[in-house]
Amino acid sequence: MLEILRLTHRIARDKRISTHLALTARAFLADKMYYSGEKDSSLESSIEKINTKFGSAFFIAYVKEPVKLIKEKKSQGYKIINLTMYGLPLKTEIAEVKKFKNILIVIGSEHVPFEFYQLADINLSITNQPHSELSALAILLHELQEGKKLQYKDAQLTIQPSRMGKKIIKRGD
Amino acid sequence: MLEILRLTHRIARDKRISTHLALTARAFLADKMYYSGEKDSSLESSIEKINTKFGSAFFIAYVKEPVKLIKEKKSQGYKIINLTMYGLPLKTEIAEVKKFKNILIVIGSEHVPFEFYQLADINLSITNQPHSELSALAILLHELQEGKKLQYKDAQLTIQPSRMGKKIIKRGD
Repeated sequence: MLEILRLTHRIARDKRISTHLALTARAFLADKMYYSGEKDSSLESSIEKINTKFGSAFFIAYVKEPVKLIKEKKSQGYKIINLTMYGLPLKTEIAEVKKFKNILIVIGSEHVPFEFYQLADINLSITNQPHSELSALAILLHELQEGKKLQYKDAQLTIQPSRMGKKIIKRGD
Repeated sequence: MLEILRLTHRIARDKRISTHLALTARAFLADKMYYSGEKDSSLESSIEKINTKFGSAFFIAYVKEPVKLIKEKKSQGYKIINLTMYGLPLKTEIAEVKKFKNILIVIGSEHVPFEFYQLADINLSITNQPHSELSALAILLHELQEGKKLQYKDAQLTIQPSRMGKKIIKRGD
C-alpha cells in the first residue's frame, strides 16, 4: 500500500494545494490520502469526480488524530516517510524507499511539530531549498513509480498522448 | 536560459500555487518566471524574500501579453515546452528537451487556448492523468537538472541534510 497523510489542511488557504496533492497521489497510483485539519467535503467530492471519469479507487479520508494514524500504521509494518527540506537527500535514500512494501508519506504544512520527525523512518528532502510540499510529493512519486503504466482500467475517459491538440477516448468508442 | 511562463494567474484562486511554481522554478535553478493574468505584488515580494535568504537572482516578472512574449522568445531561438496532460510523454521527449540551450516552459491554468499548443515546439505530458501544473513542472525540472547541485552561493542560510531535525547554517557561522 502506498498512502499519503496531508497535515493540517485549512480550507481557505489550502483548497487547491490539497486537491492537487490528492490528484497527484492518484495519478501516481497511490491508494489513499488521509488529511487532518479542517474536514472539507468539497475536496473529497472533487477527487471522487476524477475517479469516476478517469478511473481508480483512490480514496480520500479525513483523520482527526494524525499522530494516532501514524502509530497505527507503524504497528502494521508501514514505513513512514516525512517529506521535509531538512531531511536526507532523495538520491541517497530512494533505493531504500523502493524496498518498502507499505509506505505512508507524511506531507506537512508550514510548521510540522518535531514529533513527526521522530515518528518517521526517513526524513526525506527533495532538494534542501524551500519550494513546495506538492513538488516534493510529485518528484518522490515519479521516482517511486518509475517504469509503471500510469493508467486505470476502469476509466471512462482515457487520454492518448498527442503532438498537438487533445485526443480523448471514451469507453465504448 | 531556463524560463517559465505561468498563464492567467488569478490572485484569489492561484496565490499559493503560483508562489509554489516560482519557488520550485527557483529551487531547480531556473532563471525567470513570467506570469500573465492579474499582477500580484505580494507574489513578487514573497519570492524576493526567499532569494535574499536562500540566494539566487531568480527573477519574477508580470507580462500582459503572453503570446507576444512567446513569439519574442521563439525569435531569439528559445524552444517552447507547453506542459499539458494531452501532450507527448516525458520519457520519449526528455532527451530532446535536454539538448535545448534556451527553454521557455509554458504552464497553463484551467483552459489553455489552442494557440499555445500551436506555438509550442513540444507539447509535453507528465502522465496523461489530470493532476497539477505544479507537479508537472516539478517533475520536468527534476529530470532536466538531474545531477546538478541545487544550491546558491549567495545564500544567507544553507540547509544541511539531516537524519532528524533541522540544521541551518548561517553565512559567517
